[in-house]
Amino acid sequence: MTLASRIHEPAFSLRADAVRRTLPEAGLDAVLVTHPPNLRYLTGFDGSMGALLLTMSAGTLIVDGRYITVSRERVAGSSELGWLGVALAPRSLEEAIAEAISGEQVRAIGVEAAVMTLSRFDRLTALLGAKPGGRPPAIRLIPCERVVERSRIVKDPGEIDTLRRAAELLSDAAARALTVVAPGRTELDIAADIDALLRSVGFSRPAFETIVASGPNSALPHARPGPRRLSPGDSVVLDFGGVHDGYCVDLTRTVQLAPATTDFLEAFEAVRAAHTAAIAAVRPGVKASQVDAAARQTLASRGLADAFVHGTGHGLGLEVHEEPRITKVGSSATDEVLQPGMVFTIEPGAYLAGAFGIRIEDDVVVTSEGCEVLTRVPIDPVGYGRPAARAGAAGGRDPAGD
Amino acid sequence: MTLASRIHEPAFSLRADAVRRTLPEAGLDAVLVTHPPNLRYLTGFDGSMGALLLTMSAGTLIVDGRYITVSRERVAGSSELGWLGVALAPRSLEEAIAEAISGEQVRAIGVEAAVMTLSRFDRLTALLGAKPGGRPPAIRLIPCERVVERSRIVKDPGEIDTLRRAAELLSDAAARALTVVAPGRTELDIAADIDALLRSVGFSRPAFETIVASGPNSALPHARPGPRRLSPGDSVVLDFGGVHDGYCVDLTRTVQLAPATTDFLEAFEAVRAAHTAAIAAVRPGVKASQVDAAARQTLASRGLADAFVHGTGHGLGLEVHEEPRITKVGSSATDEVLQPGMVFTIEPGAYLAGAFGIRIEDDVVVTSEGCEVLTRVPIDPVGYGRPAARAGAAGGRDPAGD
Repeated sequence: MTLASRIHEPAFSLRADAVRRTLPEAGLDAVLVTHPPNLRYLTGFDGSMGALLLTMSAGTLIVDGRYITVSRERVAGSSELGWLGVALAPRSLEEAIAEAISGEQVRAIGVEAAVMTLSRFDRLTALLGAKPGGRPPAIRLIPCERVVERSRIVKDPGEIDTLRRAAELLSDAAARALTVVAPGRTELDIAADIDALLRSVGFSRPAFETIVASGPNSALPHARPGPRRLSPGDSVVLDFGGVHDGYCVDLTRTVQLAPATTDFLEAFEAVRAAHTAAIAAVRPGVKASQVDAAARQTLASRGLADAFVHGTGHGLGLEVHEEPRITKVGSSATDEVLQPGMVFTIEPGAYLAGAFGIRIEDDVVVTSEGCEVLTRVPIDPVGYGRPAARAGAAGGRDPAGD
Repeated sequence: MTLASRIHEPAFSLRADAVRRTLPEAGLDAVLVTHPPNLRYLTGFDGSMGALLLTMSAGTLIVDGRYITVSRERVAGSSELGWLGVALAPRSLEEAIAEAISGEQVRAIGVEAAVMTLSRFDRLTALLGAKPGGRPPAIRLIPCERVVERSRIVKDPGEIDTLRRAAELLSDAAARALTVVAPGRTELDIAADIDALLRSVGFSRPAFETIVASGPNSALPHARPGPRRLSPGDSVVLDFGGVHDGYCVDLTRTVQLAPATTDFLEAFEAVRAAHTAAIAAVRPGVKASQVDAAARQTLASRGLADAFVHGTGHGLGLEVHEEPRITKVGSSATDEVLQPGMVFTIEPGAYLAGAFGIRIEDDVVVTSEGCEVLTRVPIDPVGYGRPAARAGAAGGRDPAGD
């Protein structure tokens, strides 16, 4: 870790305290954090496996031999992690967790039910309950929901800065991505170009497997890129995202390769109107389902109610799909009331099986008045499939020549 | 799905029957499969979320609206999936699972304890147990381990063909990857080049985040590529893999940029000897821990016992880390007796904190006599860091010029 990154350290102490404040009302005196994005949020640890035992006054980060050196150095060099010790798991993570728990004066320990598996829960229970005489163990593991996620749902200023910057990078990549779409190229070719663009603008990696779906494939909301070659008149959905400094952003544009068709353009304008209506509905105090309803009603009013087969959006942060979920009432366990600092996608779509699909997606942050759209790329139904005008650009082969 | 891929369909019927045969002895009359690689193994479904209720005579694949069309088409067009129905989860996956279970004459249903979360188990139990009168539910969910993994551990001929082909692609990419290592380039530059190479040889994606670790970073077994620029004399660990037709392969080479040092070369020869000894130890009937011991003893005999901080290898298949684990006795829940058709990595290493690290990794398949090494790339301690000889190649900047 360089000095520069240390100066802009995330507010780990504040975050840990926010989680601690929620423990007493849940009857807990500690929480065991094992979900990697939650570990990263609270400690900066970004390995694939580890655990944090967070008590009311301190914490122990438990990692294996792969991560011990770098973790100890990072904690020692941090001004935000004075409350955190680092322990090595020389054998299984569960054994080290049980040892850390036994070393603290804690009795009721929350575990993250949404990610803790039955296997791990049973192993931990057995390790903690191994008392002579068959007495019930004094230490209890209590399944809990959203202990850390509740804090993560509202981004702090540092996180918003990171997401804003990530959205700028993504807008940059998107503007260039639209120029590599041309008849004759395959979905896989274009996806590879987009992944290279994501790297070249500065992302550490794509946030998910890039979607390039053309023609009838575009009617499948989660199509994977394949060997299909783009043809004139195809609808092409490009859905991609990047990870910047751990934070995920996500964007979709759809274009039709010439010649344009009335059916496509009408559906495109309906989706664009739904996108506009949903963004206009975002402000503090509104429920997530109301934003979804704004998009859904717009599509329904144009006869596309059944063509919109997914939710309007999802939260963005250390995960590419997190809270808040912008969906219909009843589709999400929580229908969040929007607050300033929430960051999520707005991505209505319309999918007409066998014909074409359209999705338009941007990322927004809720502000005190409404929202700020973080991604900035023109929304234009017309593709760039004019090989003659693109001499020198990647691809652009004449499909008839293959 | 094209006709060509249908002709070479995986043996889904045989796989389902192999799993079914294990159910009665576990007291089960069905198993609920939710681990994505297991779903893919048994049905070809490769979405991010779904479930399979596998009964003794049939099966139901439960997917959400994103996957319903493609799944129905695929099952209808398959000659191996006649036993499988497809059901839509219009709301939560758990509700649709409970409905599918209720529609079958099943009472004891295994669930995959290693992946099923406490939350999902509780939701399913509540949905299945909602009986009037408070009687205990007639349907029991029984946590199980390795119900499908036990079958996956020995690859069938089609899988071995796929892995052999994937290893050829990886060898191809590796030979070219070694040419982009040069002083003055950053780890991130080289990682981006390797990822592009993986795509260009035909992989659908990297199997994991490519590792390029140079100088002291190479002493961290799981370092991530960063902005560090390579310098003369650096050890450079390149660890990368690709996914081909769903199957993962994995390879590591380490080189030292000129000038060579005696310390590095000695350690390199020790790791190479450990790699050779481990491969020589692979044959049917041998325990996985004996292969690990062959590598570990070789390194110990050269004074590097403490420098080898991880296991010797891991299984490869639909997951990049699966069974068998080639580790010390006691480090893995199962110490598998090797059988023909098992595929795994051999990757001993030596890590000298603050100085350098070395790892050499190849992929092998156990044969009736011993093993076949699937990856084929020279093992050479000398890097290609001679910019003058590489005019026109990527990178090769003079580090002093930055």
